[in-house]
Amino acid sequence: GDGLLTLAFELMADPDLNSLDSAVSLAIIQVIARAAGTNGMVGGQALDIDAEGRQLEFDQLRTIHRAKTGALITASVVSGAMGGGAGPDQVARLEEYGRAIGLAFQIVDDLLDVTATTEELGKPAGSDVRHEKATYPVFFGIERTRELAAEAADQALAALDGFDQRAEPLRALARYIVERSR
Amino acid sequence: GDGLLTLAFELMADPDLNSLDSAVSLAIIQVIARAAGTNGMVGGQALDIDAEGRQLEFDQLRTIHRAKTGALITASVVSGAMGGGAGPDQVARLEEYGRAIGLAFQIVDDLLDVTATTEELGKPAGSDVRHEKATYPVFFGIERTRELAAEAADQALAALDGFDQRAEPLRALARYIVERSR
Repeated sequence: GDGLLTLAFELMADPDLNSLDSAVSLAIIQVIARAAGTNGMVGGQALDIDAEGRQLEFDQLRTIHRAKTGALITASVVSGAMGGGAGPDQVARLEEYGRAIGLAFQIVDDLLDVTATTEELGKPAGSDVRHEKATYPVFFGIERTRELAAEAADQALAALDGFDQRAEPLRALARYIVERSR
Repeated sequence: GDGLLTLAFELMADPDLNSLDSAVSLAIIQVIARAAGTNGMVGGQALDIDAEGRQLEFDQLRTIHRAKTGALITASVVSGAMGGGAGPDQVARLEEYGRAIGLAFQIVDDLLDVTATTEELGKPAGSDVRHEKATYPVFFGIERTRELAAEAADQALAALDGFDQRAEPLRALARYIVERSR
C-alpha cells in the first residue's frame, strides 16, 4: 500500500507523462494528497475502523462517507477540471458535482447491500447488516433512502447547469450511479 | 503511516510553503517519491522483513541497505541541491556524496550494534546478533568493517572536492557519521 501510494505521486510528478504546466501539476498533486490523506480517504478509513461495533449518529456516518469515498471522488473530478484548464467558477461547480455523486454513490452502496442479491452485487450482500453497520437504510428506511439517492443525483446534475454537451459523460455518470444494480 | 506519507507530498506540493519554481518542486517530489517507494525505502523494508531468518549473500545485504536507508539519505541531499539551484554536475557529485554517507551510516550502525553498550546506543545493543541478521561485522569482522566505514566517509569527502567552504557542514556530517558512538 505504501509503495503504490508513493508510486502515484511519483507518476503525477513526472513531467514526461503529461503536458500540463508545472504549476497545474503541483496544484493537482496537492488536491489529490489532501483528498487521500488524514482529512480524506486515510482518515475516513481510520474513523470507519474505529466505529466498528459502536452506535453512530447520522452526522458521524456522513463524516465518514465524505472522507472515505467522497473526498477522492471529488478530487478526481476537480483534478480533471484543473488539468483541462477550467476556470475557478467551473472548478467550483465540478467540485459540487463531485461531492454530490460521491454522496449518491455511497447511499446506493448502502442500499444495494440490503436490496440486491449476492449474485447481482458480485460481493456478499447483507454484510452491513451482519456487521451492524450504520447505513442510510438503517437511519431512513429503504424508500426514503431511494429518494435521498435520487436527490443527490439531481443535485449533481444541477451543478452541471451551464455546461454544454461536453459534460454529457458526467451527466450519464450521475444517472448511472443511482441506476446501477451492482 | 499512510496519512503521514501523504501529508509529506501535500506539503511538498504547497506553493505557499516554499519559494521554489514549480518545475523544481515537481522534480524534487519525483526524486523523493522514487527514493521512498518500492525501489527505495518501502521496497528495502519489504526485502528486509522477507530476509528475516534467512542467510543473505553480501550483495543482497548491500541491496537492502541501499534501498532501505541509502536512497532516502541520498534524496535528501539531492533535493536540497536541486532546491538550492545546483547545476547537473553539482547534483551528480552530491548524489555520490549522499550514497557514500548512506553506506557509511549503515556500516557504522551495524558496527555499533556489536561494539557499543546498550547505554551508549540508547537502544538495545546486540539485537542484530540475537536476530542472526546479516551485517557488515558478520561478513568482514570488526576491524575490516571499521576500515570500510572510513573508506565510505573518505569517498563522501572526495565527492565534495571542488566545493568551497560552504560544503563544510556536509564534510562535518560525513566525519560525524563514522565517529559517532550512538
